[in-house]
Amino acid sequence: MKIGIVGYGNLGRGVESAVSRAEDMELVAVFTRRDPSSVKIHTDVPVLPYSSMGDMKDQIDVMIICGGSATDLPEMTPVIAEQFNVIDSFDTHANIPQHFENVGKAAAAAGKTGIISVGWDPGLFSLARLYFTSTLPTGNDYTFWGRGVSQGHSDAVRRIDGVKDCRQYTVPVDAAVDRVRSGENPELTTREKHTRECFVVAEEGADLAAIEEAIKTMPNYFDEYDTTVTFITEEEMAADHSELPHGGSVLRTGTTGWDNEMNDTLEFTLNLDSNPFFTGSVLTAAARAAYRLNQKGQTGCFTLLDVPPVLLSPVSPEELRAHIM
Amino acid sequence: MKIGIVGYGNLGRGVESAVSRAEDMELVAVFTRRDPSSVKIHTDVPVLPYSSMGDMKDQIDVMIICGGSATDLPEMTPVIAEQFNVIDSFDTHANIPQHFENVGKAAAAAGKTGIISVGWDPGLFSLARLYFTSTLPTGNDYTFWGRGVSQGHSDAVRRIDGVKDCRQYTVPVDAAVDRVRSGENPELTTREKHTRECFVVAEEGADLAAIEEAIKTMPNYFDEYDTTVTFITEEEMAADHSELPHGGSVLRTGTTGWDNEMNDTLEFTLNLDSNPFFTGSVLTAAARAAYRLNQKGQTGCFTLLDVPPVLLSPVSPEELRAHIM
Repeated sequence: MKIGIVGYGNLGRGVESAVSRAEDMELVAVFTRRDPSSVKIHTDVPVLPYSSMGDMKDQIDVMIICGGSATDLPEMTPVIAEQFNVIDSFDTHANIPQHFENVGKAAAAAGKTGIISVGWDPGLFSLARLYFTSTLPTGNDYTFWGRGVSQGHSDAVRRIDGVKDCRQYTVPVDAAVDRVRSGENPELTTREKHTRECFVVAEEGADLAAIEEAIKTMPNYFDEYDTTVTFITEEEMAADHSELPHGGSVLRTGTTGWDNEMNDTLEFTLNLDSNPFFTGSVLTAAARAAYRLNQKGQTGCFTLLDVPPVLLSPVSPEELRAHIM
Repeated sequence: MKIGIVGYGNLGRGVESAVSRAEDMELVAVFTRRDPSSVKIHTDVPVLPYSSMGDMKDQIDVMIICGGSATDLPEMTPVIAEQFNVIDSFDTHANIPQHFENVGKAAAAAGKTGIISVGWDPGLFSLARLYFTSTLPTGNDYTFWGRGVSQGHSDAVRRIDGVKDCRQYTVPVDAAVDRVRSGENPELTTREKHTRECFVVAEEGADLAAIEEAIKTMPNYFDEYDTTVTFITEEEMAADHSELPHGGSVLRTGTTGWDNEMNDTLEFTLNLDSNPFFTGSVLTAAARAAYRLNQKGQTGCFTLLDVPPVLLSPVSPEELRAHIM
């Protein structure tokens, strides 16, 4: 199947790499809203202007849209779904129903298939929550994130006066994870579940104490957490914080038996050296499913919750039944 | 939806309990090949003879077949699929393709839907292997089982002369699991992955040394493992080994990035106080999916790999998108 990438930031690069590993896929073009001549990509497919996408209607089976959830995807995914099967990683959890409806209308009208909110959270973590609650209906859910870089929190710190750069790590509290794993079913506050670590490059002469105070008291982002702030040099930032690791765990603890006397724990954990490379790989598997759904006449909007798992794999259903069941 | 249970051993009891928790389900009857009057069940639905099943054709939406994989299910599931939507837990991995074909032919001809090999392995572990290999295509898979009771190994020991009862625990080797988790990609022998612990009640005057030797050298079952044998009394067996705990982990470690420089680890782990109660709960969720697939006209044989996850949940797709994505 023939793949197009829309947007070439970290995630676009991750998709480019993942598509190159897929023997059943071919990358056809990368589309950008920047000046295409300014965008250097890793492979040798053409970089084309965003506005020229329509010309490639017959040459691309699935567009993987690698934009931001705040402003890019709500606008782009429904529009692109009027001409292409689409994948996106829309991750503003509260707005997923609205985005699903918008993409669904556009895709259904055009006979196209879209799978939205693909990645690991939302995505694989959502699947874990669904399988876990469906098979262990009496219980409690817990999600922990990290240790990993939160782009949103890093950006929030960068907006503070005197801050040149920041990398913010979200860190799960080991003791809390252990309490959950033990089946204790604890009620955990926001502060008890995660801590936040900020590595900050300050502008010369900036008031470091004021920056630290501004970070630690920032509503929503930091005020409900125990946050540490460490000032570092630009060189240290480049040397020690250039990657984007992430990970986390979905846990469900619950009971079975007539008197709820049996305790069960289900856990899905991932640890990623590179969030965008892995997320790109998940989007690429979803592109395979979107193409196949569309071939079967299943149009409109989907999430991974709606997709038969077998459609994500390059391996045939017969082989899967014989070898991985 | 209206549910029937075929077979009332440990798994049948687990399904009975799980169905009683499902607000969208009603247990209609339990079918047995034993004398129905000899079968005492937990709820107050009728226990009916296996041979009378056909009379209930219009009163049961899904039959959950709780028989053994060696001889019961290969014969029963295709026959029952001629009259009912069916679920089974067929777990002889090597014979799944043949069983799939047999059930598929019968179900398709009758306009019924079957989901086979439901449970946690095969079942949820198969799903983990599929999601993991599809989203992290370059890597290695590992499955560890335990600590938990293996019925097959317990039965094998019971067949040794002088053995009255046995409970065999399969135990993953922590050091091996840790090596996998660390991303080392080790090649592990059978002996390095699991140990086996046998708790044996011997007949009076039996030759204990001979029993221990017979266990430890038994081909396929024990000879490739480090096995410990502990002789206990019948009272100790009843007091300490009456439950059937189990669990295990599916891990995949692999790489992303242009030079495979990024290491990722994906892990699904479950710990169950009661294998049959949890497995019964998984079968019950699958019954919901079988009913819904059949309502949509999707007949024939499926495994969980083919089933859209959303069909397992009593919660509507809209609610799931709003709350668990």
